[in-house]
Amino acid sequence: MKTGLWLIGARGSVAVTSMIGALAIRAGLAEPTGCVLESPELRSDALPGIGDLVFGGHDIVSTPLEKKAATLAEAGIVPGRLATAVQDVLLGIEHDVRPLPVAATQGETARAIGADLGRFRSRHRLDRIVVINVSTTEPAPPPHPAHADLAALRAALEGQEPVLPPSALAAYAALSAGCPYVDFTPSTGARLPALDTLARERGLPYGGHDGKTGETLVKSVLAPMFAQRNLKVRTWSGINLLGGGDGANLAEPAANAAKAASKQRVLPETLGYVPQGDTRIDFVADLGDFKTAWDLVTFDGFLGTRMRVEFTWHGCDSALAAPLILDLARLTAAAHRAGRTGPLTELAFFFKDPLGSVPHALAEQWRALRAAVEAYGTASTPR
Amino acid sequence: MKTGLWLIGARGSVAVTSMIGALAIRAGLAEPTGCVLESPELRSDALPGIGDLVFGGHDIVSTPLEKKAATLAEAGIVPGRLATAVQDVLLGIEHDVRPLPVAATQGETARAIGADLGRFRSRHRLDRIVVINVSTTEPAPPPHPAHADLAALRAALEGQEPVLPPSALAAYAALSAGCPYVDFTPSTGARLPALDTLARERGLPYGGHDGKTGETLVKSVLAPMFAQRNLKVRTWSGINLLGGGDGANLAEPAANAAKAASKQRVLPETLGYVPQGDTRIDFVADLGDFKTAWDLVTFDGFLGTRMRVEFTWHGCDSALAAPLILDLARLTAAAHRAGRTGPLTELAFFFKDPLGSVPHALAEQWRALRAAVEAYGTASTPR
Amino acid sequence: MKTGLWLIGARGSVAVTSMIGALAIRAGLAEPTGCVLESPELRSDALPGIGDLVFGGHDIVSTPLEKKAATLAEAGIVPGRLATAVQDVLLGIEHDVRPLPVAATQGETARAIGADLGRFRSRHRLDRIVVINVSTTEPAPPPHPAHADLAALRAALEGQEPVLPPSALAAYAALSAGCPYVDFTPSTGARLPALDTLARERGLPYGGHDGKTGETLVKSVLAPMFAQRNLKVRTWSGINLLGGGDGANLAEPAANAAKAASKQRVLPETLGYVPQGDTRIDFVADLGDFKTAWDLVTFDGFLGTRMRVEFTWHGCDSALAAPLILDLARLTAAAHRAGRTGPLTELAFFFKDPLGSVPHALAEQWRALRAAVEAYGTASTPR
Amino acid sequence: MKTGLWLIGARGSVAVTSMIGALAIRAGLAEPTGCVLESPELRSDALPGIGDLVFGGHDIVSTPLEKKAATLAEAGIVPGRLATAVQDVLLGIEHDVRPLPVAATQGETARAIGADLGRFRSRHRLDRIVVINVSTTEPAPPPHPAHADLAALRAALEGQEPVLPPSALAAYAALSAGCPYVDFTPSTGARLPALDTLARERGLPYGGHDGKTGETLVKSVLAPMFAQRNLKVRTWSGINLLGGGDGANLAEPAANAAKAASKQRVLPETLGYVPQGDTRIDFVADLGDFKTAWDLVTFDGFLGTRMRVEFTWHGCDSALAAPLILDLARLTAAAHRAGRTGPLTELAFFFKDPLGSVPHALAEQWRALRAAVEAYGTASTPR
Repeated sequence: MKTGLWLIGARGSVAVTSMIGALAIRAGLAEPTGCVLESPELRSDALPGIGDLVFGGHDIVSTPLEKKAATLAEAGIVPGRLATAVQDVLLGIEHDVRPLPVAATQGETARAIGADLGRFRSRHRLDRIVVINVSTTEPAPPPHPAHADLAALRAALEGQEPVLPPSALAAYAALSAGCPYVDFTPSTGARLPALDTLARERGLPYGGHDGKTGETLVKSVLAPMFAQRNLKVRTWSGINLLGGGDGANLAEPAANAAKAASKQRVLPETLGYVPQGDTRIDFVADLGDFKTAWDLVTFDGFLGTRMRVEFTWHGCDSALAAPLILDLARLTAAAHRAGRTGPLTELAFFFKDPLGSVPHALAEQWRALRAAVEAYGTASTPR
Repeated sequence: MKTGLWLIGARGSVAVTSMIGALAIRAGLAEPTGCVLESPELRSDALPGIGDLVFGGHDIVSTPLEKKAATLAEAGIVPGRLATAVQDVLLGIEHDVRPLPVAATQGETARAIGADLGRFRSRHRLDRIVVINVSTTEPAPPPHPAHADLAALRAALEGQEPVLPPSALAAYAALSAGCPYVDFTPSTGARLPALDTLARERGLPYGGHDGKTGETLVKSVLAPMFAQRNLKVRTWSGINLLGGGDGANLAEPAANAAKAASKQRVLPETLGYVPQGDTRIDFVADLGDFKTAWDLVTFDGFLGTRMRVEFTWHGCDSALAAPLILDLARLTAAAHRAGRTGPLTELAFFFKDPLGSVPHALAEQWRALRAAVEAYGTASTPR
Repeated sequence: MKTGLWLIGARGSVAVTSMIGALAIRAGLAEPTGCVLESPELRSDALPGIGDLVFGGHDIVSTPLEKKAATLAEAGIVPGRLATAVQDVLLGIEHDVRPLPVAATQGETARAIGADLGRFRSRHRLDRIVVINVSTTEPAPPPHPAHADLAALRAALEGQEPVLPPSALAAYAALSAGCPYVDFTPSTGARLPALDTLARERGLPYGGHDGKTGETLVKSVLAPMFAQRNLKVRTWSGINLLGGGDGANLAEPAANAAKAASKQRVLPETLGYVPQGDTRIDFVADLGDFKTAWDLVTFDGFLGTRMRVEFTWHGCDSALAAPLILDLARLTAAAHRAGRTGPLTELAFFFKDPLGSVPHALAEQWRALRAAVEAYGTASTPR
Repeated sequence: MKTGLWLIGARGSVAVTSMIGALAIRAGLAEPTGCVLESPELRSDALPGIGDLVFGGHDIVSTPLEKKAATLAEAGIVPGRLATAVQDVLLGIEHDVRPLPVAATQGETARAIGADLGRFRSRHRLDRIVVINVSTTEPAPPPHPAHADLAALRAALEGQEPVLPPSALAAYAALSAGCPYVDFTPSTGARLPALDTLARERGLPYGGHDGKTGETLVKSVLAPMFAQRNLKVRTWSGINLLGGGDGANLAEPAANAAKAASKQRVLPETLGYVPQGDTRIDFVADLGDFKTAWDLVTFDGFLGTRMRVEFTWHGCDSALAAPLILDLARLTAAAHRAGRTGPLTELAFFFKDPLGSVPHALAEQWRALRAAVEAYGTASTPR
């Protein structure tokens, strides 16, 4: 089950960390820590192995992968010895990481993206390609009537005016080329009615949104705890301090707003009401890829007694995201093989802002994931 | 379904807070915050209502309930207006709170306990009585051959030498008197083979151990999160600072050891391995009933990147425990009515150190609890 | 040494807490905890006693002081028994708390304020009156040429257009009436060249700005620690969560900006450079007068090793500010008696954003304060 | 001013980090971050330069310095590039790091230590040698009458029974050989009346105890803050989690007790009373040389309002200690040259448990240090 993993933002920290990790695991140099599908309860023959993944992608920057790997090693995100050990294989991937096409119309750009995907598929004789967006967060796009209608969208894409934000254009191009699409960012991606129509028309699944790697992950277990104990959460405030590429981008108010909205959604969904308080995101360049989040939760116990929980999360965003990228590629490939189409609601476990009307409590998302892995296995023809 | 709730330690903070709360809720003066059975998903006609509970109990101290209520109000554990509002009803309960009998032999003591239970039952025409231990934590008792055999135990209890620690003697007395027994402390309680035999012989259920009210509650959702994300927890260290009666008792090394062991059990059970680090309990009198716990968790992410989570829990022990006492009385009564006998493994949700081979992840315990509430309803004859 | 303490914002939490406290201390019902001048090293006969203070003030709201006292007791800011005990004396103060005058021109308003001060002085035969601003934070005012010149200011105040923000108008009125003025807020107050001229002309001292009650207090000892150990602070980020009146006001971006700027000043002043990171202020109504601040400091040790300190401050703003108000009234009165004029730079210990070119390390500010108390004693004629 | 720095425990983490650092700074490869004497306010010609230090020492282990350096680099305590860059110079030091002599009597051992010091002095034509103890913490020794009398001590040292703990024997040997002695650990060192006599007899200064590198450093600025604000500290509890060599040693109850006592001393000394609460030290091997300390401080504000501060310190012990070792060697050499004898009370800034009756507030210790540096300059003859 040879599976292409095509990354939008293939020269970024998350993408290159996932490449180094997959190569190191394949070579027996590293454990698959953080790879959810490698936990005993989820291991399954229905999924392609980490070793079955073939990497490629688009990016607007041209930093060589090896150079990025060296930077990641220096920043303590990947061990230097691993960056060195996989250097040669990384050089081989270089050929499959292409500059993101930019053409006169968005329609033309989409076709150029599709052509790149086609060449990738033939060169490596891939069974399928999963396209995953790991580029920086976009502001929410202005609404456009063509977003709701596939025919109108197709027409509009041939005009001079851009009609889709880059993530949605990538989703359109991927789906048009027969590839499932997953968005690991809070950007629009395939989350437009016209693109849902396209996915169903082509019999393709799609997934997202916004990888759940830190503060929101903790929220998704603490909030259900309060709900199950019938404790009344009064306030939930948080701040995220982060540097790195995504941090700089999130210093932009529009992108920040998109992200912060995504981060708070878990509370009403699990508590059933909205406590006071906000989630802030602050850019502090010097922190690099290591993020510190602090949350304060105040709640009422019996007879109104006031209590509080605080937590501090100190994590490395790329190191938390990278193994999930491998998981998502493998799951989406298996879902595609099993004939799943439309939004992959069963992958809510991975996302801050999951598609569909799904549980937001981590434990329930975990059960849904386990059931999905089983279902993919049952649906697949024997290999 | 008039249910007696007989508390061992009936003049302590937890007991009196639960009385004030039940009376205030019944009078429409307070919300049932923290009462798990009042959450929409668990509300059921199969359970006695909070208003159906009749309070009584034993204690070795003789502080009047009203005086204890005033102390609780002053310490900010219950609102002063509620302590005042229920003053008269509390005075009525006074009659049913008896000095803990102490006789020449443990057998005799047990019979005296049983007689008190009998009088309580007749005076209030109760359908059943649930006995719950909320007294201070005992050291683990020395082993004794009679613990394993009911006949031997019965014989030994008639000797001059004590053979059971107080909590187990209370369990023996309760079960002998036909009352289900629940231990909210880490003490021995009904957790001896001879007492299990007794419970089954009498067709009675029993439950425990050690109410999960703070740090361990948080652990029971964070540890599964790490497991489900396949992140490797390297160290988990914690300290609990608490004053109050239980704090003073836990300053005793033997009781402290019993408690600390109970608190760490959740980690191997949910992670599948034992991370480095210990849980400390420190007595700081001035903190009173408000407990502050701090935990540091260090873990490996992808490719061994080191990360960490810290949390601080600042809660009021009695306010967290009291609503669970009401829940446990109602659940155990329903279980008894439904014919359940032996260890109530379905109540693991409430305990740090639950009986039986049960899940330790809170979310799974919650599902087991929900299923039990449904099963009790089905098994019960219509009222 | 009968001293009037005239509070701008006399019906607010800080003002009423300081009244209750002073009255309770005078009556022997409370300890002077938090009153800096009552520490053994600073006690001095050169200062008026807490019992020598006579309260009055202006406010734009009309909530009775007793009602405010009850609210403070309910919120846990002052003990209920104290609020009750001083109720009658508080009622007596009511007469001296006047509605803030508003006239056709700012000049006229100033004269009306002065008249109120005059009546207060005669009624109580006061030796002097200290005016302290404890009202909510203003946005920074637009610049005006008259701010730099006293004659121009006097002329401009007679025009229809307002030329001074409220705090500066209060300072102008106080100084014109022969009263020293202190600003406990970050607002403009006496901090304008024209008002400095006025103070010197009238032989009056003035003080400010922005009482140092929480996060900045901790910063003022931690930052010097890093400097003295020659450790390089890389980032210093913080967030303040607060409800209450001041919190609501600080939700306004302009007031928030004024406050946040004031809070960061200590870092460059003590470290000699500006680390990355910001201080946020978030309004969370439910937290009331209790403020939680969290700060993360990352720093380099020997050979660049990265380290970090986090702190959480959970304090009650009014309870922290109120005793400082009593201290400032007593100190400013003594300074006035001792003939000090112009900015009271020796009071930097009390302020986030102190007047003049003064040390920002708390320990140095403390020494300056101790020296000032001694100097006031030496300068004063014997009583 | 060529100064020998003779380290007891010369192959340990602190010692080797200080060597790598001094060599790297000398070579212009690193900044002297954390070296107190390199801050602008303390730089002085009266002090030997970092480049004037010549390293030697004793140890009971025989790990080559280069190997230890590699281990430190791997653990992230020193940068790999620096460990590599100074490798050759480190090899040169190897010759001056001797096995700790062990002879039939302690007197003989002391003479063997003295002989090693003599050879070190002649080989490098040193102006003087400062001996600093950085070995692991000892338990407090049993009292012995000879500790109080130099003549009795000299006699007792020739007997078969050991009379001094290792640190005190090292101090005896150093002082007998004309070398000032500093103890960076909580061990006994020169802190015995007989050794004080010896130091004065020989005209030598000595210093200690227990380098202040983390939690206690923060305490020494926070506790004075509470005192100066007249806030009443009610409880101060802390826990230190650490691995590494010192951590393992501190898992021994006796050493742990010695250390914990040293850590709490700052509170009564700065507050004037002893708040409730203890400081715990827990060994968690996996944390290595990185230490996490958490402290909870609860305090009363005005009218008894309860408030709290928490802080978490995450530091690298060796990286914090190493630059202070360089400072202490330079200061002690300058003190010796300036003719100081007996306990160096002016170095309290560096220690948890300083010699003599000295201030424990960091800011006052800093002023004493600055005065001492000036005094050393004045006392020294021109070079």
